[in-house]
Amino acid sequence: MIGAGVIGSLFAGHLARICDVSILTRREEHARALNERGLRVSGRHDFTARVRAAARPEDLPEFDLGIVATKGTGLEPALAALEGHAPRATLMTVQNGLGAEEVVRRHGAWPIVTGVTFMSGTRHDDAHVEYILDTETWLGPYAGLPYERVEEVAELLVRSGLEARAFRDLMPARWSKLIFNATINAVAALTGLPHEGRFAQEERLEDLGHLVHDLVDEGKRVAAAAGIELHEDPWEMNVLATRRGSAHLPSMLEDVVARRQTEIDLITGALVREAGRLGVPVPLHTALLRLVKAKEASWQTQASSVRAAA
Amino acid sequence: MIGAGVIGSLFAGHLARICDVSILTRREEHARALNERGLRVSGRHDFTARVRAAARPEDLPEFDLGIVATKGTGLEPALAALEGHAPRATLMTVQNGLGAEEVVRRHGAWPIVTGVTFMSGTRHDDAHVEYILDTETWLGPYAGLPYERVEEVAELLVRSGLEARAFRDLMPARWSKLIFNATINAVAALTGLPHEGRFAQEERLEDLGHLVHDLVDEGKRVAAAAGIELHEDPWEMNVLATRRGSAHLPSMLEDVVARRQTEIDLITGALVREAGRLGVPVPLHTALLRLVKAKEASWQTQASSVRAAA
Repeated sequence: MIGAGVIGSLFAGHLARICDVSILTRREEHARALNERGLRVSGRHDFTARVRAAARPEDLPEFDLGIVATKGTGLEPALAALEGHAPRATLMTVQNGLGAEEVVRRHGAWPIVTGVTFMSGTRHDDAHVEYILDTETWLGPYAGLPYERVEEVAELLVRSGLEARAFRDLMPARWSKLIFNATINAVAALTGLPHEGRFAQEERLEDLGHLVHDLVDEGKRVAAAAGIELHEDPWEMNVLATRRGSAHLPSMLEDVVARRQTEIDLITGALVREAGRLGVPVPLHTALLRLVKAKEASWQTQASSVRAAA
Repeated sequence: MIGAGVIGSLFAGHLARICDVSILTRREEHARALNERGLRVSGRHDFTARVRAAARPEDLPEFDLGIVATKGTGLEPALAALEGHAPRATLMTVQNGLGAEEVVRRHGAWPIVTGVTFMSGTRHDDAHVEYILDTETWLGPYAGLPYERVEEVAELLVRSGLEARAFRDLMPARWSKLIFNATINAVAALTGLPHEGRFAQEERLEDLGHLVHDLVDEGKRVAAAAGIELHEDPWEMNVLATRRGSAHLPSMLEDVVARRQTEIDLITGALVREAGRLGVPVPLHTALLRLVKAKEASWQTQASSVRAAA
């Protein structure tokens, strides 16, 4: 497992019940906590698994399957560290947005399984993750990888207790999620609202659902121009998700609350770049990209005025 | 003076040096502080003026000129309280956006001077305001008021030490400010950025200046459809203001930081409603209206979850 945030920890914990799992962490103390205490999963499932962890790839054994589970913003340094290691391994990506496979490819010739995951959880500490939504992870082949290899990985995940599904072509599902993510994350990041009922409200002129709908429609026009037939309608995904009861906190809103750099470049940025390449106007997604980038910049402005005042 | 926030206090303090000023406040203790301590103005000018204040119009003497200086959100209750009082007075409005005069008219037949003010300040406490930008207040006639009455009020303000200018038709200036305000306030409210250099930056695709420019252009199309020839180009107002050095904190960002209801309905809302009436599409202003309304709603959501958790 390369990276052990929420998603990486959920994969690692479950897989460690059926095979040997080693985890590459960014921080030394994170690796130490995992080695000493094991990895606890609570919530939907409840167990503690033994794992082996280190902050340098040379301190970990060779592996057959490497799941790259860093955030999009941590992908480049993680792959740079991995370069030259495990040449016989297959790598699997699960980053939001588009383009993670190209980053992997720049650092090595590993065969790649491409993934999108809908599961979610909460990280309680370095060695404890709570499994909240046990939704599926979807897998597909990248650049000519035989489909059988994708099926093998999906079966492995299912045997470990997770939900997973292999697709011969992941693009329809991936684009559904990209459009959904670009819309919900940016709107949540700017408004401070968790993903709740207002995202589907379309009564009065000022209702937020109109904007969400317009953003989804822009995204669908890009997918259509790219020749993608969507797996699910992102607007219906939105309506269903807001009816689920407990409002989900999109990861980009968590980033904003913590004043961390967001994944906007990888999600909305990817959509806007594809739209530009295909000549499809996406004024609303472009506006949200600019607003979220400016919001990130405001933290530097505030930090530097605090420094100037000190 | 009806209302003594920053703008009302700046008018009242200066005018009290050359004529009798009484102030209608919302809170009793605000009136008490003004009666006991006088109204201190610091910054560009420095003096303390004697004023008479009360929280009920019946506790104040008759007046010739009433300046309605509440925020747009406080306009309706202030005028309701004033109804039936001072029938021979002229009222002057200085609210942001459009439509303050119509609210005044619904509560009485007073002749109306309509104003926009560009001055700014900081309120230190109930009886102390700092005068920061000594920019002009612009005045014009509403609904057939003789222009001479507008000139009289402008001269009064100038004699008191403020900058003021009378216009035979205020609409060109008012629309310039409306477009400027709708753009800068909503972008600042959503990004957390004060009005600084990034608002005019247009190099990379994700630069905020592109969005600001697009918003200004939408506004200009509405003004053109309304037959208004703008007094100043709001984009140039933006570029000039960002070059002034010290970044100004737009009032809507102050409201967001304090989690108060903003003036979005009166500013961006007014522009969007005019655009709808004239059949001009304003998708970006509409998107910002929806985002800021949703941001206001997020405070209720958070407050109610805090209550639920308590």
